[in-house]
Amino acid sequence: MPTIFFYGPSLTREKKIELIRGFTKTASEVTGIREQAFVVYLQETDPGQVGVGGELLADRQKK
Amino acid sequence: MPTIFFYGPSLTREKKIELIRGFTKTASEVTGIREQAFVVYLQETDPGQVGVGGELLADRQKK
Amino acid sequence: MPTIFFYGPSLTREKKIELIRGFTKTASEVTGIREQAFVVYLQETDPGQVGVGGELLADRQKK
Amino acid sequence: MPTIFFYGPSLTREKKIELIRGFTKTASEVTGIREQAFVVYLQETDPGQVGVGGELLADRQKK
Amino acid sequence: MPTIFFYGPSLTREKKIELIRGFTKTASEVTGIREQAFVVYLQETDPGQVGVGGELLADRQKK
Amino acid sequence: MPTIFFYGPSLTREKKIELIRGFTKTASEVTGIREQAFVVYLQETDPGQVGVGGELLADRQKK
Repeated sequence: MPTIFFYGPSLTREKKIELIRGFTKTASEVTGIREQAFVVYLQETDPGQVGVGGELLADRQKK
Repeated sequence: MPTIFFYGPSLTREKKIELIRGFTKTASEVTGIREQAFVVYLQETDPGQVGVGGELLADRQKK
Repeated sequence: MPTIFFYGPSLTREKKIELIRGFTKTASEVTGIREQAFVVYLQETDPGQVGVGGELLADRQKK
Repeated sequence: MPTIFFYGPSLTREKKIELIRGFTKTASEVTGIREQAFVVYLQETDPGQVGVGGELLADRQKK
Repeated sequence: MPTIFFYGPSLTREKKIELIRGFTKTASEVTGIREQAFVVYLQETDPGQVGVGGELLADRQKK
Repeated sequence: MPTIFFYGPSLTREKKIELIRGFTKTASEVTGIREQAFVVYLQETDPGQVGVGGELLADRQKK
């Protein structure tokens, strides 16, 4: 029962489905484990809660 | 100072307390470490943010 | 498909089974989700890789 | 700078590369973020450290 | 591309920036890796979702 | 009881202590929570288990 966590931006419902399908398909093909066994957690991260290079991502994106 | 993360459904306040007590009691008994040392993080996961078997959990639950 | 992570000490095989059973039973009872849906990851953490109160856990345990 | 964690079985070097490429490509296409920004952590999990349905995965696999 | 996760209380925007800067500076100095390579995720945890010593943190804080 | 996870390179014992001290001091100063309450998990990540920009970190480092 492998598990995938994705820490990234907010996505539309369609994009979430696309991401879950893509990750599960790839992981199932590479590992040989059936798709039903995979769980994917999409952890939306607000740019005001993420730091990149010592700066708030929200501030970097304004530049 | 062991740490437990639970990724699961939304729970009422009473259920949260019950889960925290149960996890802490079990972990303390099994490891022999005093209950005061345990931290539990309940990470509520929205069915619209979780994929199971390549599908959105929110969609599977409708079936 | 809820998921539980446990960051704690090394355990014997018997203790691991006991911990997995206890966590799964508690979580299933509290959430009403069947036991088969739960995944537990035991992440053994070496006292030489953990800090508590600003000190290496390995050093605190010697005191 | 999105981040992906994969908790799953041990893989050969070739399979690891394939998994990292696949995850990164999919995530970049879905989010519109350039591939260079993605980090993937492959967390190999020993079947003797994972519980599924209240049992050790190592024991389930023997059945 | 090292990654830091912080599970802790809600912070003001200024405090978040201070924490991200401090973590990144320390980690860069200790590891010798350039600051630009570090990602920090601030995971705000509600005291109603955290257990300490078998109790809800929200309840401990009232005592 | 805030918790910090660091996913990064292997470090000497001295460097680990330095990192734990630095993270704990910074986090305590910024949050106003006493140092004793902080737990830090150093998760060493092998360059052969990390992907950056779709490539194995181990391969990027050779370039």
